[in-house]
Amino acid sequence: MTAPALPAAVAEALVARHGELAAISEPGPGVTRLFATPEHLKALERLRAWMDQAGMTTRVDAAGNLIGRWAADPAAGEAAKVLLVGSHHDTVRQGGRYDGAMGVLVAIACVEALAAAGTRLPYHLDVVCFSDEEGTRYGTSMMGSRALAGGFDEAVLDWPDADGVTMRDAMTAAGFEPDAIADCRYDPARLLGYVEAHIEQGPVLEAENLPVGVVTAIAVGSRHRLTVTGTAGHAGTVPMDRRRDALAAAAEMILAGEAVAAAGDGVVATTGKLEVAPGAINVIPGAVTFTVDLRAPDETRHDDAHAALVTALDAIASRRGVRVQMERIYRSAGCVMDPGLRAALARAVAEAGYPVRELFSGAGHDALSLHQVAPVGMLFVRCKDGVSHNPAEEVAAGDLVTAGEVLLSFLADFAPPTTG
Amino acid sequence: MTAPALPAAVAEALVARHGELAAISEPGPGVTRLFATPEHLKALERLRAWMDQAGMTTRVDAAGNLIGRWAADPAAGEAAKVLLVGSHHDTVRQGGRYDGAMGVLVAIACVEALAAAGTRLPYHLDVVCFSDEEGTRYGTSMMGSRALAGGFDEAVLDWPDADGVTMRDAMTAAGFEPDAIADCRYDPARLLGYVEAHIEQGPVLEAENLPVGVVTAIAVGSRHRLTVTGTAGHAGTVPMDRRRDALAAAAEMILAGEAVAAAGDGVVATTGKLEVAPGAINVIPGAVTFTVDLRAPDETRHDDAHAALVTALDAIASRRGVRVQMERIYRSAGCVMDPGLRAALARAVAEAGYPVRELFSGAGHDALSLHQVAPVGMLFVRCKDGVSHNPAEEVAAGDLVTAGEVLLSFLADFAPPTTG
Repeated sequence: MTAPALPAAVAEALVARHGELAAISEPGPGVTRLFATPEHLKALERLRAWMDQAGMTTRVDAAGNLIGRWAADPAAGEAAKVLLVGSHHDTVRQGGRYDGAMGVLVAIACVEALAAAGTRLPYHLDVVCFSDEEGTRYGTSMMGSRALAGGFDEAVLDWPDADGVTMRDAMTAAGFEPDAIADCRYDPARLLGYVEAHIEQGPVLEAENLPVGVVTAIAVGSRHRLTVTGTAGHAGTVPMDRRRDALAAAAEMILAGEAVAAAGDGVVATTGKLEVAPGAINVIPGAVTFTVDLRAPDETRHDDAHAALVTALDAIASRRGVRVQMERIYRSAGCVMDPGLRAALARAVAEAGYPVRELFSGAGHDALSLHQVAPVGMLFVRCKDGVSHNPAEEVAAGDLVTAGEVLLSFLADFAPPTTG
Repeated sequence: MTAPALPAAVAEALVARHGELAAISEPGPGVTRLFATPEHLKALERLRAWMDQAGMTTRVDAAGNLIGRWAADPAAGEAAKVLLVGSHHDTVRQGGRYDGAMGVLVAIACVEALAAAGTRLPYHLDVVCFSDEEGTRYGTSMMGSRALAGGFDEAVLDWPDADGVTMRDAMTAAGFEPDAIADCRYDPARLLGYVEAHIEQGPVLEAENLPVGVVTAIAVGSRHRLTVTGTAGHAGTVPMDRRRDALAAAAEMILAGEAVAAAGDGVVATTGKLEVAPGAINVIPGAVTFTVDLRAPDETRHDDAHAALVTALDAIASRRGVRVQMERIYRSAGCVMDPGLRAALARAVAEAGYPVRELFSGAGHDALSLHQVAPVGMLFVRCKDGVSHNPAEEVAAGDLVTAGEVLLSFLADFAPPTTG
């Protein structure tokens, strides 16, 4: 069996629409499209028109999510369940045109292909465009998908943006219904799953010359703030063997984090912030604070790496006569992709003629909120140089079409469990 | 032969005067006594009174230096030359009571001991209290001793302090003579040398349980600004083996600097400042700037260490696929102490019953300007915990007396060359 091809017009539109949608942005480099802004509404209008043209039944829910339904084959009857496919429209500031938008456009292209072939599926296919995944405006995250999963925290409605406008007021002004967000929730008993195509945001697929890969899990992650306390001193008068240099100790600790991660399977550790005190060119640093962001494909690998890091830090501190304190400031439990969806996506990739590359996601995605209520699966799409959250973000046109065809193959083959 | 003892009253006054002088300070912790301020004038008045009491001929020169002469034995005749002994009165902000002041007070104590014994020397002993060594107010350095050495740069007279008052105006207001600074210069042909007692500002003597040590040289030093450029990336999505992490590279470079210094003889290297870009907890650093302050006892050891560091940095950058740029922003040629003065000070230390510990100075001192015109020598005095430039700076009373006795022994034994 060969993977179904996207009709030429559908493939062409899929590529062109990324440019059209990217034009809906605040001024400045790249794409800046934030929650409950005029750009949000304009993007929904455009997407909704494409969904309507494809024959979908569309609505915008109380949380500002756009949902287009490609209704099930009538033979499925009243009992027809729902498969969610999509992503988010919103971006970071000066982001790219593929992060989020691609997952929605690819799903719409699939419906267009189904419509062109006159195909109805044995389930309702709901193409979702989440209103807010990045959380750029309000410091939230996955607000749109949380609303669908029933995990929305109403307290954030009172949060202000940088201009002091609360989320509630912004939503009301945009025509959404902040006080009806509970109504956005899907009944978990009716959900078959959630599947998303997303750019990889990393260099793995490109390095292996593959257009797509199947996601195994979203990383378990933790963030830590570390403080190293040594002894400040005169850079000229304290011999090397009598120093308790907080920065030299921190440098060794950063490299220990790097080594621990490199020794782990799929583990990454990053120090992104570091501050030195007193911070004078001729003074041996007395104190350094820095961060460690640690992520791993699962809990065990995360916790093993964390334990190895703690052991290494203590050894370094003890040998150098400095003190180190490590405080956890964030933890994400991650999520594992559903084995059935993962296998089905793998089959679709193979059918399209590509080796199946499974990889885990170091970044968070809407699947994190939806896995609370439904099986989740994700398809990663190759991006240029691993660059994302950046105007330079790029996905080749051919890869967009491949992603569409793999997803179409998956959808065509997907069968709801016979029970229930 | 035993070292001459300071008379009990002289020793007692030497200790007490550190407290009296420290009280002449701007408000706040520690001692803050800056150039051409009321505190400067008050300190000179106090020191001058002590010099006068000891029988010295005193004057304040055009640059605000206080100079007290213990005139030579008349037998030395018209040809009598001058040995300068002293240090500076000025401090860093919130500094200690020993850095500078001790060298002046110890020299005055020596004259008091000579006077008590009715001893005249075969040379003029000029006790100098330099007006400005730290350069705290104007960002100059060793301005007072430069004036004596004829190396004063008149351009700095137009520099403003933090309140916009130029050095010229401040000097005039203090009663000094900015336009007559050239007159401060000593004729090099008449100078026998310059000798200074100064706190070590490091931990070496304390660690070796010695009250004093003989300085071999003032460090050759250089300061560098380094920039490492890697590739910023998502902390979750870029695998460890595909990163070009500018901070991990910089960490390795900092440790390379540490290792190069530790492998050198008396070499020290310090990274005191470091900045990370973009500096977000979940972003792999794309660029890091940091400093390296490198000092060594002589040119060869400095340059060898510098070359070894450059080689190490290049290897690290190349292996990690990052770029590194190193820009020198400061260079001090240092100076080597005069072998004759060094030997004479060593003899005095041994005579006082202590092992002779020779050590080099990582910090700059007035000897740097005076070595341009005369032989220079320095005696280091043990300080508590190596702490200096800090209100906690401390020298034991017994060590002050030992320093005085060693210097007195040196002075009593010092003979001008018979030629000239």
